[in-house]
Amino acid sequence: MGRTLQNTMINLGLQNACDEAIYQLGLDIEELEEMEEDAGLGNGGLGRLAACFLDSMATLGLAAYGYGIRYEYGIFNQKIKDGWQVEEADDWLRHGNPWEKARPEYMLPVHFYGRVENTKTGPRWVDTQVVLAMPYDTPVPGYMNNTVNTMRLWSARAPNDFNLRDFNVGDYIQAVLDRNLAENISRVLYPNDNFFEGKELRLKQEYFVVAASLQDIIRRFKASKFGCRDSVRTGFDSFPEKVAIQLNDTHPALGIPELMRIFLDIEKLPWDKAWEITKKTFAYTNHTVLPEALERWPVDLVEKLLPRHLQIIYEINQRHLDKISALYPGDVDRLRRMSLIEEDGIKRINMAHLCIVGSHAVNGVAKIHSEIVKNQVFKDFSDIEPAKFQNKTNGITPRRWLLLCNPGLAELIAEKIGEDYVKDLSQLTKLNKFVNDDIFIRDVSKVKEENKLKFIQYLEKEYKMRLNPSSMFDVQVKRIHEYKRQLLNCLHIITMYNRIKANPTKEFVPRTVIIGGKAAPGYHMAKLIIKLITSVGDIVNNDPMVGSKLKVIYLENYRVSLAEKVIPATDLSEQISTAGTEASGTGNMKFMLNGALTIGTMDGANVEMAEEAGEENLFIFGMRVDDVAEMDKKG
Amino acid sequence: MGRTLQNTMINLGLQNACDEAIYQLGLDIEELEEMEEDAGLGNGGLGRLAACFLDSMATLGLAAYGYGIRYEYGIFNQKIKDGWQVEEADDWLRHGNPWEKARPEYMLPVHFYGRVENTKTGPRWVDTQVVLAMPYDTPVPGYMNNTVNTMRLWSARAPNDFNLRDFNVGDYIQAVLDRNLAENISRVLYPNDNFFEGKELRLKQEYFVVAASLQDIIRRFKASKFGCRDSVRTGFDSFPEKVAIQLNDTHPALGIPELMRIFLDIEKLPWDKAWEITKKTFAYTNHTVLPEALERWPVDLVEKLLPRHLQIIYEINQRHLDKISALYPGDVDRLRRMSLIEEDGIKRINMAHLCIVGSHAVNGVAKIHSEIVKNQVFKDFSDIEPAKFQNKTNGITPRRWLLLCNPGLAELIAEKIGEDYVKDLSQLTKLNKFVNDDIFIRDVSKVKEENKLKFIQYLEKEYKMRLNPSSMFDVQVKRIHEYKRQLLNCLHIITMYNRIKANPTKEFVPRTVIIGGKAAPGYHMAKLIIKLITSVGDIVNNDPMVGSKLKVIYLENYRVSLAEKVIPATDLSEQISTAGTEASGTGNMKFMLNGALTIGTMDGANVEMAEEAGEENLFIFGMRVDDVAEMDKKG
Repeated sequence: MGRTLQNTMINLGLQNACDEAIYQLGLDIEELEEMEEDAGLGNGGLGRLAACFLDSMATLGLAAYGYGIRYEYGIFNQKIKDGWQVEEADDWLRHGNPWEKARPEYMLPVHFYGRVENTKTGPRWVDTQVVLAMPYDTPVPGYMNNTVNTMRLWSARAPNDFNLRDFNVGDYIQAVLDRNLAENISRVLYPNDNFFEGKELRLKQEYFVVAASLQDIIRRFKASKFGCRDSVRTGFDSFPEKVAIQLNDTHPALGIPELMRIFLDIEKLPWDKAWEITKKTFAYTNHTVLPEALERWPVDLVEKLLPRHLQIIYEINQRHLDKISALYPGDVDRLRRMSLIEEDGIKRINMAHLCIVGSHAVNGVAKIHSEIVKNQVFKDFSDIEPAKFQNKTNGITPRRWLLLCNPGLAELIAEKIGEDYVKDLSQLTKLNKFVNDDIFIRDVSKVKEENKLKFIQYLEKEYKMRLNPSSMFDVQVKRIHEYKRQLLNCLHIITMYNRIKANPTKEFVPRTVIIGGKAAPGYHMAKLIIKLITSVGDIVNNDPMVGSKLKVIYLENYRVSLAEKVIPATDLSEQISTAGTEASGTGNMKFMLNGALTIGTMDGANVEMAEEAGEENLFIFGMRVDDVAEMDKKG
Repeated sequence: MGRTLQNTMINLGLQNACDEAIYQLGLDIEELEEMEEDAGLGNGGLGRLAACFLDSMATLGLAAYGYGIRYEYGIFNQKIKDGWQVEEADDWLRHGNPWEKARPEYMLPVHFYGRVENTKTGPRWVDTQVVLAMPYDTPVPGYMNNTVNTMRLWSARAPNDFNLRDFNVGDYIQAVLDRNLAENISRVLYPNDNFFEGKELRLKQEYFVVAASLQDIIRRFKASKFGCRDSVRTGFDSFPEKVAIQLNDTHPALGIPELMRIFLDIEKLPWDKAWEITKKTFAYTNHTVLPEALERWPVDLVEKLLPRHLQIIYEINQRHLDKISALYPGDVDRLRRMSLIEEDGIKRINMAHLCIVGSHAVNGVAKIHSEIVKNQVFKDFSDIEPAKFQNKTNGITPRRWLLLCNPGLAELIAEKIGEDYVKDLSQLTKLNKFVNDDIFIRDVSKVKEENKLKFIQYLEKEYKMRLNPSSMFDVQVKRIHEYKRQLLNCLHIITMYNRIKANPTKEFVPRTVIIGGKAAPGYHMAKLIIKLITSVGDIVNNDPMVGSKLKVIYLENYRVSLAEKVIPATDLSEQISTAGTEASGTGNMKFMLNGALTIGTMDGANVEMAEEAGEENLFIFGMRVDDVAEMDKKG
């Protein structure tokens, strides 16, 4: 989510009043804003998408909840020591969190482990370990529309009788200390981006958020006038009309068997009815086709932690495969490909398959990505349910990523086309009228210049370095990943350095190369790439022959609040992932909206933006394509 | 501390205004007050004393701080299930604590483990593990005097680079989870009362509070105009004039070697100067002479956890023994008796000896107890420094234990002698004038009756039992301990039951026997005694032949807020510990102040109160001495 203060003031329309009031008190509001900790509860684009969606849904007046985990420690803070990444725990709640409100009245139990008992009235999940889920609500105000939605994050609490229940417990102190083991569930965000790590604690997190949220949803549904006070059956028939659950990638996929378990074992619905309602309720957003990112949970682990859910997943799979068999008699290979259970090596559950089968809609996050999802990766599934596969191109909220971070540009635009574009970005096309308006172009450039000067102040203070404000700010900020090719960028720096050294008198457009991003702590190669960039920077920045022509900055601890500083000051946005890997491309949208030019591969939503812009404006994507060609040539 | 809301309103003189305001809002202030969790951060009388002292010191306008540990889990909540005590974790901070304010600006490091390095400038404690101590301040308002003191409780925080510092850490997640190990220091109160349990985590707690508090004290001293900005030596000369540290039993005894370490190793004072200042700064309150309660920490454990402190303790001991040797040449047995180090069995540090040697004053908590301390238990020490040994009879705060819990009686008294007695209890002697004032006596009885009726409402709701308001309320509430003889009380119940059964028509003064108190979870015999009492209660309460003549209630989860209910409703207070064990006797003072009569052994301050009352009024201590005699007769 990043910070909340300024965003709240903007969306409530009281930023100017607050600025003025704080100024009258002799304080500096920017200084106060800098004191707020970022809420860093996600890893990369997927989490940022959810945050932007919350703002947009509130602004559109949609009654939506964002459910997640209240991690006690969010994404680690990155320090650069001797050029290497060093992690520090993100103790963001240390001084409390004024934006959240605990809601103990809505606390709910979540069960783990245990076994399935077959009773006369059906299977029962018994002898479980219980962890309580305490909700913390954060308000999500819409932009100037008197609407406030809720983000509800769950925190794990041990029950008060935890480990103290039975007479066989000898050590009271140890029992109290062991509460932490239960509460570890919401302790820390797994810091992987686009990489699956099949740890038990992570699986607990995935079930925890799903089990608490579904109970919460059903409680609200039952309390509503649509709820099933009189008749269970007719009550839940209206469930999918009133409840839509969007799965943000497969991480909450267990919601599907969990809702089935509630309907079957608790509400005593028959399978077909339960399945019909479940499918109508869920929709699934696919975020990546990178094989190493796909969740494939070992059956053994799921059986131990969630024995009843495994039974239900098996039953879902059986019925699913029966259907395929009827459609394609004898096509054993298709059954193998489409099964929810992978049988090569240790048995695993393919969570994407579970999501597809259990949802009524599946979408990719950009036109080209949705095509790949439909026609390549999940072709077998779209063959039988083609209408299920859709596209929903991701976006970003222009409130945070323009109004908040670049007020100068926002105002300039408003002077030309009014303020309605803030809620309806398509109105930006009205700016086409001014494409040859020299004064407007000059004013836009001036804003960029001012943004760069402000950012230079920040950089010079942080990095004790003199920077050239008239140099091109060439920026690549995102998670460190081999497929994102920070290495390629580094090779470009070396190339430029060699060019300058080889021909010091030749004209060279001065550049400040800014690279930032966190590497997953266990991702050795990504951490080596950081060290390479900082080491190259040490050479380049201290070479008197290079002087102010080329500087390299490794931006420490890249996060939302730092993105808000660097993006409006960027001239050139580096989008150079290997082709076909960057599913969405929202990373670049923020730069575009702030008037930066883009270099790189045509991927994700960039393709759509390019098409929208049209041939004659395609320069904004390819301005320095020559550079890339040259780098490629030189290996 | 118990609850804070009502106490704050009373001390600030705004209880009536608040009552009225809340009533106008259509709310019931008593209902609101019941929502506050007790701060249960101590075990028994020792902790209650500290809490009462804080109120009294603030009321006296003394600039005093109360230092302690902000336990995340205080004294367990006691449930009675099937007659047995069952413990539940006291998750008192679950919904936040509105009375505390975190002070991260005063966070301090506390070191553990490591080793001592001998450098040119003296010994240095190095390679330690660091835990941060975060202070939380709670205001302590004086009674109607515009003074607010501070209770500062320390919470353990892992440093943000905890376990992440070095390159050799493979598992980021585990490192973050392991922060709990460091933070376990302030997790839970050890639930023993008057019993020493030599666990490493407990020793860590004792050093943690001492190390953080001393740093805090020295920081404030240095910031004051008396601090040593220019010259270290003269600076600290005034330290004992400005700083007095009262050790509430031996639990903070490590403050003595810790202050020595600061003076020697950090401030570079010579030994004699450091020792002189340290002794002048510390005073020690002895709370018990029960052998099983005396702290005797194994040398091995201290050496591992606090190697430099062990060196300093050895040096203190050497110099101490040298002095004894010079005074009593050849008296080897005296050296053995007086050593800080016990050598029979595994080597242990006698913490009481450390406190006596390192303090300029030692006091018992009642006249008779102080005599025992001086002339028996620590006679060797008083032989050489007789003036060091003093008496400070403990007291209780009449704000909480009369004004707050018994407003009816407080008002009645004020009508007769004015309100000054609230700050000066000696004025209660003015009531002697009214000892034969029938109307006053009747009014006092009426208040007691009302208090009993109110308490009966509570009991009947909690225990689903009909109670007889005209029965004698015979109350024993305190920690369960063999020496406190709840067992004797139980035998008395059985005796009365047998008498009623043997002679059902004989007149019997109806009694409601109320026993309450927690047993340490590891104290098997105490838990058996609870089970005996509840089982006896089951028989007595359900015997139709007994009817309303005798009822037995085991008061679940006895704590400050429950004491405030039961004490004003008590007719007879049971103080029947074995002779010579109840050092102070403040437990009874609360009952006395609320007009209950006392039965029991003459112990602690009860002796002084009896003497003060004089022969003719001694009935208040011995009203039913015959009962005791009879019980003794019947074994």
